[in-house]
Parts: sequence; structure tokens; C-alpha cells
Amino acid sequence: MEGNPRLTPTTRGRDGVRVVVLGAGFGGLTFCQNFSFPGAEVTVVDRRNHHLFQPLLYQVAAAGLSAPEIAQPIRSILSPRKHVNVVLDEVRGIDLTGRTVALTTTTLPYDYLVLALGGVTSYFGHPEWEALAPGLKSLEDALRIRSRVLLAFEKAETEPDPVARQRLMTIVVIGGGPTGVELAGAFAELTRTVLRSDFRHIDPRQARVILVEAGPRLLSHLSEQSSASAQRQLERLGVEVRTNCPVQSLQKDFVELPEEGIAAANIIWAAGVAAVPLTRQLGVELDRAGRIKVRPDLSLPGYPEVFAIGDLALVLDETGRPVPGVSPAAMQMAQHVAQLIKANLVTPGTASRPAFRYWDKGSMATIGRSAAVAEIKRLKLSGGVAWLVWLGVHLIFLIGFRNKLAVLLQWAYAYCTYKRGARIIVGEANAPGPTAFG
Amino acid sequence: MEGNPRLTPTTRGRDGVRVVVLGAGFGGLTFCQNFSFPGAEVTVVDRRNHHLFQPLLYQVAAAGLSAPEIAQPIRSILSPRKHVNVVLDEVRGIDLTGRTVALTTTTLPYDYLVLALGGVTSYFGHPEWEALAPGLKSLEDALRIRSRVLLAFEKAETEPDPVARQRLMTIVVIGGGPTGVELAGAFAELTRTVLRSDFRHIDPRQARVILVEAGPRLLSHLSEQSSASAQRQLERLGVEVRTNCPVQSLQKDFVELPEEGIAAANIIWAAGVAAVPLTRQLGVELDRAGRIKVRPDLSLPGYPEVFAIGDLALVLDETGRPVPGVSPAAMQMAQHVAQLIKANLVTPGTASRPAFRYWDKGSMATIGRSAAVAEIKRLKLSGGVAWLVWLGVHLIFLIGFRNKLAVLLQWAYAYCTYKRGARIIVGEANAPGPTAFG
Repeated sequence: MEGNPRLTPTTRGRDGVRVVVLGAGFGGLTFCQNFSFPGAEVTVVDRRNHHLFQPLLYQVAAAGLSAPEIAQPIRSILSPRKHVNVVLDEVRGIDLTGRTVALTTTTLPYDYLVLALGGVTSYFGHPEWEALAPGLKSLEDALRIRSRVLLAFEKAETEPDPVARQRLMTIVVIGGGPTGVELAGAFAELTRTVLRSDFRHIDPRQARVILVEAGPRLLSHLSEQSSASAQRQLERLGVEVRTNCPVQSLQKDFVELPEEGIAAANIIWAAGVAAVPLTRQLGVELDRAGRIKVRPDLSLPGYPEVFAIGDLALVLDETGRPVPGVSPAAMQMAQHVAQLIKANLVTPGTASRPAFRYWDKGSMATIGRSAAVAEIKRLKLSGGVAWLVWLGVHLIFLIGFRNKLAVLLQWAYAYCTYKRGARIIVGEANAPGPTAFG
Repeated sequence: MEGNPRLTPTTRGRDGVRVVVLGAGFGGLTFCQNFSFPGAEVTVVDRRNHHLFQPLLYQVAAAGLSAPEIAQPIRSILSPRKHVNVVLDEVRGIDLTGRTVALTTTTLPYDYLVLALGGVTSYFGHPEWEALAPGLKSLEDALRIRSRVLLAFEKAETEPDPVARQRLMTIVVIGGGPTGVELAGAFAELTRTVLRSDFRHIDPRQARVILVEAGPRLLSHLSEQSSASAQRQLERLGVEVRTNCPVQSLQKDFVELPEEGIAAANIIWAAGVAAVPLTRQLGVELDRAGRIKVRPDLSLPGYPEVFAIGDLALVLDETGRPVPGVSPAAMQMAQHVAQLIKANLVTPGTASRPAFRYWDKGSMATIGRSAAVAEIKRLKLSGGVAWLVWLGVHLIFLIGFRNKLAVLLQWAYAYCTYKRGARIIVGEANAPGPTAFG
């Protein structure tokens, strides 16, 4: 299969180096923004036209932000970088020996390859649960969840049967990590404050929001002190927290827990993440979540010209623990690989390759208005202070001036008035699947 | 069929009057905001959960605004009006004799009925053209058009065949009314300025935007002077305007005109509007576009308790010409009917019913950045002044503070930088139909 001439670099520079980057998430984008070398051409492939600010995806699901506020066209972000080609396409396969990437429409040869395709929701061997409890990885996921929850309240408003009504007004979030905690908090706020006066026959404050965690505590990557604080803050918002509570089974609108069954029209899966399935085709060593066990310099064993960064890479820090799957880690890995390829091009054939070192800037999770937990080194924050830190960090890192300003304004407005403007359902009321949103 | 008790007013006041409003567009919403009477309950039914600011829909189609910026939840707008019930459902039929409205889930009895369901795109007896040239009436329509145009440019970027490439980069807008003029202008700006530096292999400025009008001039409801000015301003932006040019036939990606055929991956239909099909079930007299020929007081002949307002009503002004299908007209009709029902309830049985009088505040259409035409009584404006008037009027009428501010900011930002942030495609690159957007 011949490469499409419109995608193969036409002007090859000193070395005519072709760098192919798969994925324009935090890792892929940061690489493109940090790598340049005379004559080198970078081609970045993504199946979507937008970069997504994943840390705020839960806000889109909970109708707090609209989709474009956390997304930006990849072309527009990379527009000033003339050596970078953006291709909207899907990766079909990678030939590590032949050094080519097969897309749907063409095949790209490469000299260096950066794998930055991220992760997918994992149902731990229960793929049939996906239809019953959607996960939260993409804008589509977020809009689907938002649609489902808002429509359930619409149905509850006209539902005469109290049992059915309560089922429609129950939201179960499975998984007590950052995403689960943030989702549960945001839904509690949505039902307790935003929707409060919108209905005539139901009281949205009587909605149940239940957060289910299999392990002994929420946010297990933080200290016990922060876990306990997060649980207290969630309960103050009205969230029912169940720990030591692994899901036994899922049916349509029903969650079976060890000691109870919960009828809920809204079940959301925030319990597991795995690397994209493509890693399984590479023939390299993976961990159970499908992540590539990279070498200390982030290259693939046996393929020094191929690197894996972000959520699809298993990287160990100095203490032997895996580097967490968060955006700062992906961005640091991208910078490391950009430096490394540059150094390789300057002095080809040199053997020394520095190992990647993760600089942990801290962890945080938000729970609601003025409610959050944050840990920065030994500093543990909670409540309003942690929330302000969280707000500042997220605004600083939101890519793009417009989005930053729009998000700030919307939050300021929501904070003052408790109203939310993004509660738009696109699709018809009684159509089989009104899943698309704004 | 019995009414659902949760939808039938439970507390009936002095008269226990039940007013049912079908549709929460400009007409229905304005009625709800203007009508109140002790003991009267209003139920407004819409199949969507949001009110749409239709005049800016073309901006969503042209990726200038995001969907939530021109939409607001109906519940949230009507939340302070405790006598108003909002029902998310679809109208299945109306029994004018039995005074009931059948919805999907229940049946609503009424004492007064206000029909405000608006219009649909009309293909003048060619329903098969709908799939070839989408119209622009809903958010879904706008997002579908946006998706199609942006994906066509993505495909053009990797398309080696120059003929296919030109087809992908050609946009044909059919219909030279306000919507067609605004769409053509917005697409010309999008391709000439916003997308200019985003691609590596194509130059979006070489895209063709062609506006096709069957009649002798654009904007035929305005003066010849304004029509000519609009055409000049469009041509300055790079739009090719074809007048006296009725579409002969449409095929997939191909428009047959009297003297030429145009291959275009993007064909948009802005040529016709008709009343919703439901009017044909009522057994009352209609015009060719399905609009109800109402009495001078806006009631249906033979049914003094039923009113039709907005795009589904044919109302004649003093000069015998139909009142145009614009939002100010729908809002004025809503106010008239609200007053009339109130007066009827105060002094029941009185025979006198004032006729509706349309107060024409003027007409305008925008073409692009600093380009527009406006006519207010005898005053004819064009260019930058008309554009500022257009901007002011639309901002003042945009419902909801948040949206107003967000739209203003986004416009100010777009005006200064020529960038647009709403260019998000939701859906996968190579999925059969990535139609949903933010």
C-alpha cells in the first residue's frame, strides 16, 4: 500500500525526518508544541477534530459547561506550527518492523513514532455493562450522560407511579476515584440547587445520588485524611457514599450491591480505565490494563524509535510505583520525548538516553461549590481553600484564551446565581435515542 | 383516554381555567410570560427542552456560536411563573370539538388553546431533496450542516484528486432570503478568514460559496436598493450570487441550475418554510404553505377559544399583505392573545374582540463582519452602520443574561482575532454519520 502523496512530506529537509504522533490529547499536543528540528516534519493523527480538556469532562456531563467550552480544534491550536500536519483519521494498525502506520485512508511511514492515544473505559471483563452504565471518556459520553439524566427528570415530572418516579430520580455513580467523586458532587449540586425550582410536580432535591466504591475509601491515591474529608464534603451535599461495596451485577436500571439492590434510571461507570485496545496488536509486553511496559526513556523495548506516553504507557517512578494517568504526567512525558528525539537528531547514534523522571505537582479532586481536597507534597488542603487552588490550576491549564474566559465567566455566574445554562437537550423528546447535546 | 392526573391542574381557582400552549418558541414563550389570571393554569408543551434563538441559528451552522449560546432551557426561563407547567412531549393530535390535545404520554383538556408550533423547511413538493440539501430550522439541523462543512474541508486536505477537492470545497446555499444571505456571508467569512491558516495542503480561501436565488433579487421583502447593497457586500466577501436561477434538480453533491451544473459536497436549503404538518389535521382553512387562515383576532374560524400565532398562522396586515414570519410578529401576536384571553375572563361573554395589528419595527439581514442591510420604516441602512444596528437588536433580544454576555464576548473576540472557537465535531472521523456537535 502506497502512502498518499498529500500526506507524505514533500519537502524533506536536512535529514527528512518524519515524526508521526498518534493522538492529540495532552501528551500528543504537548509533544507537537515542544518538538521542532530543521527539516523534520511532524504529522499528528486524531480521529476527532478537537483536543479535549479531560479534567473538566465531568462538568459537561453534569450540565455545568457546554461541550465547546472544554474543547478546541486541533488545527487551530497547532496552526502557528507550520512543520506540523494535522490529519483527521483513525489508526487501523502499526507495523513496528516496517515503520508505518495504517490509517483508514492512507499509510504513513515514520522515522520516529509517538504513541499517545490514551485510554478507554474498562468494565473489568464485563463488556455487556457498557450499555447499562456509560463511562466518561469523550464528549459524546458526557453529552449522552447529561441527556439521560435530564430526560429522566423530565419523565419523573409526569410519572404518576411513585416507585417509578424514585427510580427516575436516582443516580448511581460507580467508582470512587477522582472522576466518580467529581461526578457525584456535581450531580448533587445540579439536583439540589440548579434544578430546584424548575419543576412543578417533583422536588429535584429528593433525588438520590449514590457513590459506590469497591475499596475501603474514596480517592485511594490520596491520604486517609483527604479521603475522609472528601466523603464528609460529599455527604454534606447529600451524596450517599457506599465504600467496601463492589458491584455484584448490573441490569437495566438496576445495580446489585452486596447488601442491597438499587433501582436507578441513571447509572454511570467511573470505575476503570485501560489503554486503547490497539496496544494489544503491537506484540510488546503490557500490564493487565493493556498499558505498554516502556523502557526508562519511554521507548518501546526493541524499538528505540518508538515511544509511548500518557495513559497507554506503564511508567514507574523512582519508588517503583506507576506514574498516575493524569494530564501533567502525560505532558511531562511528551516534553521528555521531544527533548530526546531532538538530542538524537543533533548527535545521531549516541547511546546515552536519559530516563524519564516524573515531577509530582500534587493531586486534587473537586466536590462542589467551595468543596474540594488537594494534596501538594505534604500539604493537605480541603474545603474552600482546596477549591480555590483547584479552580486556579484548571483555569491556568485550560488551553485557549476564549475558553478560559468563557469558563471563568460561566463559573462566576453559576457561583452567584446557582443557574446553569448548558442544560440543552438536542434530539427529540420521544425519539429513541436523543443523545446529542450542545 | 383519561388525562394524567399529574398534568391536570389539581388546584382549580375561581374559574379553574386551563390554558394549553403548544410550542415554546418566541410566540409560545411570550404568551406564557404575558398571560396570568387568578386561578388559571397554563401548560406549555414542547418536544424540546430548550427555547431557541432562531435568528442566530445560522451562526451555529457556520461554527460562529456554540449551540448552548443560542438556546436556553424552557423550564429555567419559566421557572419564576408558578402557574405555568412545562411538559416535554410531542403533540399527536388535537380534538377541536372535544377540546383536548393528545400527547404521546397523556391527553390534556383545555379551555383555551394557543397554537404556536412554528414552521418546518419546505421543499416545494420535493421531499426527496431533504436528504441532499439539509434545511436550517433546529439546532440539530445547524449542527449537521456545521459537521458536514467542516468534515468536507478535512477530507479536502487529504484528497489528491483536484476535481474531488474542489467539490469538497464548494458550498451552495439555495434561497436568497435572510437565512440564505446570512448563511452565505457567514460561510464566506469562515473560509476566507477563520480557517485560512489551519490547513497545510489546501487553501480554504479557494473555497467557492455560491448563493442561488430563483427570483430576480436577494431579500425580496426589502427595497431594491437594499437588495443591490446586500449583493454587493456578499460579492465583496467572495460569494458568487446567482439570481433568476431556479434549481432544476438536485442529486447527491450536485445542483442542476438552468445554465450550469455545480458539483458541491455542501448544499444547504434555505428556500422555503411551511407551517408544521399538524395544521392539516385541523379541518380549518389553510393557505398553500399550510398556515391557518385565522380571524382578525387570531382565533380559528368557528373556535373562538383556539388561537394560532407565529409561523403557522396566516395573518394579513392593514394593507392586506401577510405579516412576515419573523420573531417580533410572533411575539406581538402572543401579547395580543394574552390580552384577549384575560379580557374574556374578566368580562365573560362579551362580543367585542379587537383585531390584531402588526407593528413593523423594520427588517434586517447581516452579511458578515461590518456588513449588513437594515430598513426601519423609510430609513435604509447598509454596511457598518446596519451591522451595528443588527448587533444591538440581536443582543437586546437574546433571552437570558448569560447567553447575552457569552455571545457578546465571543463576537468581540472573533471580531478582534478572526478565530472561532465553536468548530468542534462530535462523532468519530470515519463513523457513518458524525452529525452531533457542541
